[in-house]
Amino acid sequence: MNEIDRAYPEGKPLTRPAVPAMDQILGRKFPMLDHGFIRVIDYMGDEGAIVQAARVSYGQGTEAKSSDRGLLRYLMSHHHSTPFEMCEIKLHVKLPIFVARQWIRHRTANVNEVSARYSVLSREFYTPAAEDLAPQSLTNKQGRAGGYSPEMAAVLQGLITDACNSSFNVYDAMTKEVDGPHAIYPLSRELGRIVLPLAAYTEWYWKIDAHNLMNFLRLRADPHAQWEIRVYAEKICQILQDWMPTVYEAFCDYVLNAKSFSAMELGLLSAYLAKPVNGPEHAGMTARELQAFKDKLGWA
Amino acid sequence: MNEIDRAYPEGKPLTRPAVPAMDQILGRKFPMLDHGFIRVIDYMGDEGAIVQAARVSYGQGTEAKSSDRGLLRYLMSHHHSTPFEMCEIKLHVKLPIFVARQWIRHRTANVNEVSARYSVLSREFYTPAAEDLAPQSLTNKQGRAGGYSPEMAAVLQGLITDACNSSFNVYDAMTKEVDGPHAIYPLSRELGRIVLPLAAYTEWYWKIDAHNLMNFLRLRADPHAQWEIRVYAEKICQILQDWMPTVYEAFCDYVLNAKSFSAMELGLLSAYLAKPVNGPEHAGMTARELQAFKDKLGWA
Amino acid sequence: MNEIDRAYPEGKPLTRPAVPAMDQILGRKFPMLDHGFIRVIDYMGDEGAIVQAARVSYGQGTEAKSSDRGLLRYLMSHHHSTPFEMCEIKLHVKLPIFVARQWIRHRTANVNEVSARYSVLSREFYTPAAEDLAPQSLTNKQGRAGGYSPEMAAVLQGLITDACNSSFNVYDAMTKEVDGPHAIYPLSRELGRIVLPLAAYTEWYWKIDAHNLMNFLRLRADPHAQWEIRVYAEKICQILQDWMPTVYEAFCDYVLNAKSFSAMELGLLSAYLAKPVNGPEHAGMTARELQAFKDKLGWA
Amino acid sequence: MNEIDRAYPEGKPLTRPAVPAMDQILGRKFPMLDHGFIRVIDYMGDEGAIVQAARVSYGQGTEAKSSDRGLLRYLMSHHHSTPFEMCEIKLHVKLPIFVARQWIRHRTANVNEVSARYSVLSREFYTPAAEDLAPQSLTNKQGRAGGYSPEMAAVLQGLITDACNSSFNVYDAMTKEVDGPHAIYPLSRELGRIVLPLAAYTEWYWKIDAHNLMNFLRLRADPHAQWEIRVYAEKICQILQDWMPTVYEAFCDYVLNAKSFSAMELGLLSAYLAKPVNGPEHAGMTARELQAFKDKLGWA
Repeated sequence: MNEIDRAYPEGKPLTRPAVPAMDQILGRKFPMLDHGFIRVIDYMGDEGAIVQAARVSYGQGTEAKSSDRGLLRYLMSHHHSTPFEMCEIKLHVKLPIFVARQWIRHRTANVNEVSARYSVLSREFYTPAAEDLAPQSLTNKQGRAGGYSPEMAAVLQGLITDACNSSFNVYDAMTKEVDGPHAIYPLSRELGRIVLPLAAYTEWYWKIDAHNLMNFLRLRADPHAQWEIRVYAEKICQILQDWMPTVYEAFCDYVLNAKSFSAMELGLLSAYLAKPVNGPEHAGMTARELQAFKDKLGWA
Repeated sequence: MNEIDRAYPEGKPLTRPAVPAMDQILGRKFPMLDHGFIRVIDYMGDEGAIVQAARVSYGQGTEAKSSDRGLLRYLMSHHHSTPFEMCEIKLHVKLPIFVARQWIRHRTANVNEVSARYSVLSREFYTPAAEDLAPQSLTNKQGRAGGYSPEMAAVLQGLITDACNSSFNVYDAMTKEVDGPHAIYPLSRELGRIVLPLAAYTEWYWKIDAHNLMNFLRLRADPHAQWEIRVYAEKICQILQDWMPTVYEAFCDYVLNAKSFSAMELGLLSAYLAKPVNGPEHAGMTARELQAFKDKLGWA
Repeated sequence: MNEIDRAYPEGKPLTRPAVPAMDQILGRKFPMLDHGFIRVIDYMGDEGAIVQAARVSYGQGTEAKSSDRGLLRYLMSHHHSTPFEMCEIKLHVKLPIFVARQWIRHRTANVNEVSARYSVLSREFYTPAAEDLAPQSLTNKQGRAGGYSPEMAAVLQGLITDACNSSFNVYDAMTKEVDGPHAIYPLSRELGRIVLPLAAYTEWYWKIDAHNLMNFLRLRADPHAQWEIRVYAEKICQILQDWMPTVYEAFCDYVLNAKSFSAMELGLLSAYLAKPVNGPEHAGMTARELQAFKDKLGWA
Repeated sequence: MNEIDRAYPEGKPLTRPAVPAMDQILGRKFPMLDHGFIRVIDYMGDEGAIVQAARVSYGQGTEAKSSDRGLLRYLMSHHHSTPFEMCEIKLHVKLPIFVARQWIRHRTANVNEVSARYSVLSREFYTPAAEDLAPQSLTNKQGRAGGYSPEMAAVLQGLITDACNSSFNVYDAMTKEVDGPHAIYPLSRELGRIVLPLAAYTEWYWKIDAHNLMNFLRLRADPHAQWEIRVYAEKICQILQDWMPTVYEAFCDYVLNAKSFSAMELGLLSAYLAKPVNGPEHAGMTARELQAFKDKLGWA
């Protein structure tokens, strides 16, 4: 294919694409919550690799897109997801178990997690900061709303910390080696751990392609996601921005901050709207993007 | 959990959910294109099974939804996809190889295809009907547009039919057993088949859950999909409607006929729109759905 | 294809395959551990459906196999896994969270789990029976070995029960509604739950195809799996046997109780062995199976 | 975790692991069949990355393994597959469509294929070399056996080449732009392509993790795989060897050249064998590997 041959002239030696902004943060621990972190261990591909994969698929068809930026935005807005699958990232994450349980539901990823059957976990658990504690929302069955007085927050923090410490006390007593006449332990680690709280920290390596990463971010950087996983998702959004700034911009425009209107809502919209003779400014959209907008509203 | 116990009282014997409209079409061949077909071989679960799975997850949180219909529409419009994964369908499909090559890209499905290494394929290939032949679109790099005169269509049909018949002639000559002094064949089937055209028909069993089925339909019942796969997708839409009428209605409202507005388009919309004092009718939406609409536009 | 047409004569109405032994246990709760259970909610397909899918793929090639049993055993021993993917089972499982965390690692399955963001969990947690408590194995880093005196076991049970009850006390205090002047709670459920122990029970609907089910069983019914997940796997083995007795037999013969010999071990074996003139009985294997055995050892 | 901290000391900057042998072949086209090729576009991770991921999971449990080599072999022989999933490779492959149809059945991979809806395919198709043409096997329903005389091979090559050229002639005539009074074409590309033979070449980017790559190789480098896909698999075996020599060695020892013995075969083996007092040499196995061998045979 000409497109590919143009991208990869035969004689020219190939080097792996590198992203300086990523190379700079490689291995650096970004603290999360009270004891957690995220760090980038490795990555594969860059925005150029996505463009290239798209050009393999669509050949000359992609030339119409004036630029790489235009092509990336076109792919994003039209849900052409396979080129984004051509890039991969590997993170090392330390996170509370209750967050890990939500995270692992994203099945199209690779995971190597610390095993508490093999290793004794150290005494690290999550205690929400005072400002992150909130009562049960009355309108949102799965959420929190409002806040507590400093005194009340301190009481709740105390309850949580004491409960988790007590659990770890029992865990340690049962699983740690002891000397002396009463040295009847240790209980097997795989059993001892069952008293540990969901607030306990675990760690894993997590590897995922850029398309499925954005699926993860769409759901977990959403305001409906639990705050404790959202902080991780928001940090990963920044990492994605470092890795692929144009892709991240398109992701914000077309996914994160986009909204879907149902068939009925579209009907209402056309009823509310009449085609304006002199409309407002076009919000920085290209002619093509503007046309797509008009098409959605049924304007000629 | 109370919700589950309510759904499945311990003493009460359980029977597999059955959908009479599906049982009626089980095994019936619906003709597709000139030699293909679709038929339902088996299915698992019904709308009740989706509701039940959702109630397992969300517990009392789902009681707020006044009805099963309300819950199903809520799940669909909020992209809560896992309950839909609880139902499964198995189809037997006969389809041209070039359609099969698009179809197989949907990875979350199970497939058993006829092997042309094991069996000699019979002489069946797709010739487009006169009205389905169309020139290359000048605006859509991947599509067709316009049509041909009956005479021209007949010429093209003749070219296609002759080319495919010639290929099958060579295939048959190379792979079929022959007697007599020149009986130097047959060539191994796995090699003989390589001359066969992409128009040749193949068959498979295809099994998929309802969520991923709708992903398939969203992409393949779309006007941008090639017409020859779209006719299959549209038939499967009807089967889905037989299987799960409320789900299908919600799928049309919130997915098939919905449109996504980018962040920029949402900005334009609010510029065009002022909150109307007396708006038009609410298009049959519930109070909750109407509120969701207003929320998308930033109205109080 | 003739094979398929033979299986599904056009005029003959089709009914979903049913397995009486499964219909009989549908919905019945099989108790697991101290508070858990497994029950079959639904299933799709039977051994006939596997045979049929294989015949679709392999056409006349499968006629050589004298019987359905022979074909099923051939598929199993040759790792032809796709026909087994044509059957599906849906279970309702109640299990401790630490078991759920191992279980969920099997990604090719569908899950709807109780959400502790939506619902308050009831006070149910796992306490190992006295005879299931065991010290850390000294040779197996991830296992247990030996046992405890009744007195020591009681002490450990007491430690576990007290720790879990204390955690639930704090959870209840923080998340349950209270009246009166000190009614400062409830804390949002999504936060309250973080003090709960990994021994707490959760529930889910779990749906998987027969091939991936056997992958699960291969790993989780293995002696290296933690005992608490193994009891679930062993019960599911029985359910598989009810569902597909011939498949289960082949699974035991060719997977569960089979062993893989490395290239080096195969070399040792041939050194140890000389082709016996009069060997022992053939252990009930067919002529074909016996030949496969000889082939593995390099005997003519 | 200590293991991870030891692997990644906080202060030390991290660089992406690189494999010189891979960097050297990056982008180089390895010719396959008559017009195809394979080339490595990118890779992520090396053997060290696998070791590290394993140490994350198993912690101190892996220290017992004296060396990285020992650990890699242990992981391979015990089917601990997740650490291998931590590495990824991206290939650019040009291959006949009938090979692509087998290849794509491996679902856990990412693919961007040339679209014949967008681009006109160039006249390239596979013609088997004389020595690769073979009659249908009489014993293996899906295979070939024997060979042809040079004259007969030439006849078959002629038949295949002529058939494919004729198909491309029609394709070109229908889809290429023509001038003049008879310029009634071009037919849309998505329709014109249906006359093309399965021998026609296509291209794709294919990205997969090392674990699933080895699954692919296990099936496609197997003697039962069609020869035309096997040559690709064998080349990828060499690439894997360049990338991860120790892993490749373990893969050969424990997977490619290993054999599984059924429960019945194991019974026969113990009947044939008596525990030898002075056995043969241990074939280079470590003490642990030798013990595993004895365990499989039920020797103390």
